Amino acid sequence: MSSTSEIDALIDLMARLPGLGPRSARRAVLHLIRQRGRLLQPLAGAMAEVAEKARECLNCGNVGTSDICDICTDETRANGQICVVEDVADLWAMERGGAFRGRYHVLGGTLSALDAVGPEDLRIPKLMDRVTAETISEVILALNATVDGQTTAHYIADRLESRVALSSLAQGVPIGGELDYLDDGTISAALSARKRL
Amino acid sequence: MSSTSEIDALIDLMARLPGLGPRSARRAVLHLIRQRGRLLQPLAGAMAEVAEKARECLNCGNVGTSDICDICTDETRANGQICVVEDVADLWAMERGGAFRGRYHVLGGTLSALDAVGPEDLRIPKLMDRVTAETISEVILALNATVDGQTTAHYIADRLESRVALSSLAQGVPIGGELDYLDDGTISAALSARKRL
Repeated sequence: MSSTSEIDALIDLMARLPGLGPRSARRAVLHLIRQRGRLLQPLAGAMAEVAEKARECLNCGNVGTSDICDICTDETRANGQICVVEDVADLWAMERGGAFRGRYHVLGGTLSALDAVGPEDLRIPKLMDRVTAETISEVILALNATVDGQTTAHYIADRLESRVALSSLAQGVPIGGELDYLDDGTISAALSARKRL
Repeated sequence: MSSTSEIDALIDLMARLPGLGPRSARRAVLHLIRQRGRLLQPLAGAMAEVAEKARECLNCGNVGTSDICDICTDETRANGQICVVEDVADLWAMERGGAFRGRYHVLGGTLSALDAVGPEDLRIPKLMDRVTAETISEVILALNATVDGQTTAHYIADRLESRVALSSLAQGVPIGGELDYLDDGTISAALSARKRL
């Protein structure tokens, strides 16, 4: 490599981002150097700021820049609903949908016997505390439709079913989805949950 | 979006990198926040350093952190050969190959009638100066095998053929390449440049 060590160091770090490899990291770094004022400097500043300020919400586990996140402090969202998600990316996906106006609880993963992840390793005890402390009418389990996700949902449902209304996201055909491209499990689920017109 | 403005700002900037879109930028930023000490802080520092130090070599156009790049100051590479490439990414690709031990000249693009790019917009006058000023025995035109790349190579060759030996990269079957997957032009070029065994 002919570039000097500072540039090599930046390439090595960029290559550790998900979705980038050595080749695309080099392309990105060249792009950054060419757009130094418009992109590289602002990006360095934004990263330093997030590195300094980002923290997990002590209540729900969302990431933000204060100890309690914007959603947990937003009184218009105190509607008694908590949506339980695996991680922050899922929370962001729900928010992009824009249909949910309650609060969240980010578990930080799923139970996994293989990886020795138990309830204490996730934010499950904190969820139990919240159901006791806040005025909660419904817990929506929006966990991924994977084996570990569904195991975790069952575990939480077992512990909460006597205390609060529980629900989970509907399974079925995605909007715009074509049957021909769907897996058999999804088609079976959509069929057994069919709605009368 | 539920995250606060600093995190949103970082996502927006990351999404402007080549190879990343809004979705992968969000994934990358979450990854960075989770790896704050090991990745986000070093990356912010490395970017700030490159933003401050990176510059184009005044001689050849390579990027580095000094006015004259490491290759141009390396006396062991003063072998009389200059390899002309379109941009720094091509220079890096040549260096990874490791077969070339001379110096480079980065044009910064190709001539293009459509985009109104003339010789003065590239580092072509500087190349002419170098052939005069340095002791150059051979100019290797390693331009891309595109129409604009070959037009640029012809333009330079016209102006230098009376002054210095000229060559271009061989065209043919890539190492490990399978004929079945090669385009017709490459096969024709490889056939007409066939070597006697």
